[in-house]
Amino acid sequence: MSLIQNTINSIQPLHTEAMNSAQERLDQILKPQGSLGKLEDIAKQTAGITGKVQNRFHKKIILVMGSDNGIFAESIATSHQDISMLVADCMAKGTAGVSVLARNAGADVRVIDLGIIKDCTMPEIVNRKVRRNTHNFLHQHAMSREEAIMAIEIGIEETFKAIDEGYDLIGTGEIGVANTTTSSAILHVLTGEHLDLVVGRGAGLSDQGLMQKKEVIRLAVEKHQPDPNDPIDVLAKVGGFDIAALTGTYLASASRRVPVIVDGLISGVAALLAIRLNPDVINYIFPSHGSAEPGALIIQRELGLEPMLQMKMRLGEGTGCALAFHLMDAAMAMMNEQAMYKDIGL
Amino acid sequence: MSLIQNTINSIQPLHTEAMNSAQERLDQILKPQGSLGKLEDIAKQTAGITGKVQNRFHKKIILVMGSDNGIFAESIATSHQDISMLVADCMAKGTAGVSVLARNAGADVRVIDLGIIKDCTMPEIVNRKVRRNTHNFLHQHAMSREEAIMAIEIGIEETFKAIDEGYDLIGTGEIGVANTTTSSAILHVLTGEHLDLVVGRGAGLSDQGLMQKKEVIRLAVEKHQPDPNDPIDVLAKVGGFDIAALTGTYLASASRRVPVIVDGLISGVAALLAIRLNPDVINYIFPSHGSAEPGALIIQRELGLEPMLQMKMRLGEGTGCALAFHLMDAAMAMMNEQAMYKDIGL
Repeated sequence: MSLIQNTINSIQPLHTEAMNSAQERLDQILKPQGSLGKLEDIAKQTAGITGKVQNRFHKKIILVMGSDNGIFAESIATSHQDISMLVADCMAKGTAGVSVLARNAGADVRVIDLGIIKDCTMPEIVNRKVRRNTHNFLHQHAMSREEAIMAIEIGIEETFKAIDEGYDLIGTGEIGVANTTTSSAILHVLTGEHLDLVVGRGAGLSDQGLMQKKEVIRLAVEKHQPDPNDPIDVLAKVGGFDIAALTGTYLASASRRVPVIVDGLISGVAALLAIRLNPDVINYIFPSHGSAEPGALIIQRELGLEPMLQMKMRLGEGTGCALAFHLMDAAMAMMNEQAMYKDIGL
Repeated sequence: MSLIQNTINSIQPLHTEAMNSAQERLDQILKPQGSLGKLEDIAKQTAGITGKVQNRFHKKIILVMGSDNGIFAESIATSHQDISMLVADCMAKGTAGVSVLARNAGADVRVIDLGIIKDCTMPEIVNRKVRRNTHNFLHQHAMSREEAIMAIEIGIEETFKAIDEGYDLIGTGEIGVANTTTSSAILHVLTGEHLDLVVGRGAGLSDQGLMQKKEVIRLAVEKHQPDPNDPIDVLAKVGGFDIAALTGTYLASASRRVPVIVDGLISGVAALLAIRLNPDVINYIFPSHGSAEPGALIIQRELGLEPMLQMKMRLGEGTGCALAFHLMDAAMAMMNEQAMYKDIGL
């Protein structure tokens, strides 16, 4: 069987017994029952993932999938396309937004290049180029079905590798100009939601640019007719290598029972694709922040995940995951270190 | 002049020049302008407070004001009243909720006892008892006007002391059974909002208990007629020593230009009182989380502060501040460590 199919098939439900024991412990901790809200939810879900009532994250990493998108040619993004390579290099140097925030949370960042047009210069960047850039999906499929599967499998392999290295909490990031366009297109197809609700300004589009972005997606979907019941078909026709690889990261994390955090629109769309491939993936996913991109609200509804942070951020890169790491650690600390009622004789 | 009046008079506006320079720097950092949302707002406001474009928090503390409330006798709280002392001791031992979460954020916790009925046993707890317990405000004023001022001044003194010790970021916490009742009463008087909107279930009241809590507040306000234009009158008649001391903490932090974080309902009411004493105090306050107590929404509107965290927490103690510390640190890291466009030749 193929790696992707094997991974999808290996995903199991949560350990309900461990979750029940976790709930018992939570109710004996010195606080009104339930009064630590989502910290309690995190602790319980983590118990369901690992099978242990008490947990601690030893090594945290944000896996950043980088790739450029041929649809950029349609002027639907404000940045220069070289920026993907330049920012990826900064991520590896430790000076990009995600690097700074991850370091602040005691976490690492690893960039995996699946299709950045230029060559990255930093040796820390993992070169797994499927191809430089996808095709312009207004004219042809962004990638072949085989390439979509290859990119998902690269995501799976790189995530397995990180887990084998001892990372036990994973964040999802991305870099690639025009990837809010690919994400919005996928979201539009998967949910049937109107383009006005799923398409936003990305890094800072004008009104004119926003109209153009919607029109490009509308035309492409009309032309290629991606099948909403076939996530790989949608990825191949209007997606990107970064989103495909992140889909692999969610599948791999769920398969190996490692908690994985969703960031904003792009990683959220990848999470949705993974869940369409196996609904049990949702049990392994944690929310982070409410992105300022409008499609993030649709993602939130589809995944049933309520953001823990409302920071009005829209940088991407995995920056929301870096902040959420603090809350995941806080939940473990509560579960491991807070007094119980019995400790004070009650 | 009195300490309280001196402190109120010494509060200055923000440094607008430093804020403008901070905005310039923010716009040159490698990211779409404004795309780090509230992290950027934090960095800018902090510059306005300190007068420096780049800042770093070296020592963080949560000041927990502890006191019991005579209104407890009216059965408007679910906990045993001994719990204040027991939890205060756990705070000092490092095993209470706020202690665990503060430690996880690299912050200290200091408990100041203004009126806990029982004697705390831990020597780390600062004994500044005004009196054991307030009066039952259904029958008489919770405290005299002099006692209200004394409690505010204790808050000012203890906050000055912490700042003199080098703490440069302050969180506000509290412990004291029935202090959502005192807070709701104050909020009701200060804003004129209906009791249904300001009164919640605290640690876990039944429907019956909730009705009783509202009725007690209604009767007390009718009886004592606290003057909404005189914050100290409101504090004295239906408040508590903990809220008074926290009011002092906000005044002192603003006076010494040190950022201070609001937690949930109780510390929010104290912030509102401080702002009624000097509107410039708001410039020094940062939000943390959206509390599950209904009155927190009213506070949010009154202060014009939008929570950064939505964790459905309602423990109090300053737990929301402990989580917000991470975000404050993250904002400083962004400002100090993230690459500028010029660094990559753009």
